[in-house]
Amino acid sequence: MAKVICAGLGPGDPDLMSVRTARVLADARCVAYFRKAGRPGQARRIVEGLLHPQVQELAMEYPVTTELPVDSPDYNHQLARFYDDWAERLAAQPGEVVVLCEGDPFFYGSFMHLYLRLRGRVALEVIPGIPGMAGCWHATDEPITWGDDVMSVLPGTLGEDELTDHMRRADALVVMKIGRNLPKVRRALERAGRLDAAWLVERGTMPGERVLRLAEAAPDDCPYFAIVLVHGHGRRPEIGR
Amino acid sequence: MAKVICAGLGPGDPDLMSVRTARVLADARCVAYFRKAGRPGQARRIVEGLLHPQVQELAMEYPVTTELPVDSPDYNHQLARFYDDWAERLAAQPGEVVVLCEGDPFFYGSFMHLYLRLRGRVALEVIPGIPGMAGCWHATDEPITWGDDVMSVLPGTLGEDELTDHMRRADALVVMKIGRNLPKVRRALERAGRLDAAWLVERGTMPGERVLRLAEAAPDDCPYFAIVLVHGHGRRPEIGR
Repeated sequence: MAKVICAGLGPGDPDLMSVRTARVLADARCVAYFRKAGRPGQARRIVEGLLHPQVQELAMEYPVTTELPVDSPDYNHQLARFYDDWAERLAAQPGEVVVLCEGDPFFYGSFMHLYLRLRGRVALEVIPGIPGMAGCWHATDEPITWGDDVMSVLPGTLGEDELTDHMRRADALVVMKIGRNLPKVRRALERAGRLDAAWLVERGTMPGERVLRLAEAAPDDCPYFAIVLVHGHGRRPEIGR
Repeated sequence: MAKVICAGLGPGDPDLMSVRTARVLADARCVAYFRKAGRPGQARRIVEGLLHPQVQELAMEYPVTTELPVDSPDYNHQLARFYDDWAERLAAQPGEVVVLCEGDPFFYGSFMHLYLRLRGRVALEVIPGIPGMAGCWHATDEPITWGDDVMSVLPGTLGEDELTDHMRRADALVVMKIGRNLPKVRRALERAGRLDAAWLVERGTMPGERVLRLAEAAPDDCPYFAIVLVHGHGRRPEIGR
């Protein structure tokens, strides 16, 4: 039976991957990773310098990323065939394959689509990672949640009204998938009265990390690897002397 | 200037701590950790066998845990003095002190109270960790969030109505601080129509890990290191052949 290991890489700094992932990477003779066609790929970039010199590399290039709406039948069809095909190819590999995944593989990760297809057909191991959002809140040097805080994680792809509603109800906020959704996310935060407390974190824990107040970001300043955060301020005992 | 490093330990399995935390632990000559009086302490247990033989250990024992309501003035006063005192003691240590924290230190962690008190007075470094909740969703072998899922993290200490309201609005749910709140959390999930999809995970990634459907758990089965999860089932391309 073939074996596929999905190694969570954490938020970006290679020093923040788990001990188990580091060991699996050093031993890997075949690695696979997702990337946008023509790009090096974020997961591959994180492991630069850490792979065996003779490692076999399988670049799984998305057939489509932002060219089609994510809810269109064509987008879904192309992605479905892409995952079907790669599940076949990974299952047919002679030895162990290590799939590289930034962040935590079970938290909005692309590997999950392979996971569903490979389950029961190959031996599977999934190694957790520090989610990208955690790397981002550490980049702000402020704790994200305290005491009884409610934290909501919102995809920036939601509609503005739905975003606003969730932003009003939670204490701490994490908004993922910013990119071209930045102006909408900003309007929703403003309507919810949370814009002044919001931070934009780009490339958290990675080279080129940037942390700025969202209110001060240019409206078209919408990098792909960005997360918007609002910190909670829940229950805490007062500071004495 | 003294230096305090807070090392996030991750969800419990020592193999899941970051490479940086593992290195800092191996070099540490003085470690500090929180624990309930008379208990070994979860953070200390995770690093068993990983510390230098001559390491100095500082056990920071909570003056009060569940004996008083968390919102009582007495609880707050005792905790505030406790953090004030330990901030003084850590700042006065001659060399580097490594504070051990399970999970991620900036996500509902106790270290944050020391962090606020030590900021500007000592050199501070905080190393992220895989949050305990991630260890728990991996223990269920199911991804927690997909596509456009909204995930809410709820402290089990909230009131039943507030819990129910949040449980109705989010796709994926993580309920922390279960313990004696288990019956209330269960009622709230039932009212929100989510009980049948809920899992109780005890000691995720640790020895004695237990994963069971919440509906099948005994009403008084309320371990301290437990998390309740409801998985999201968001957008995903259909599986082909």
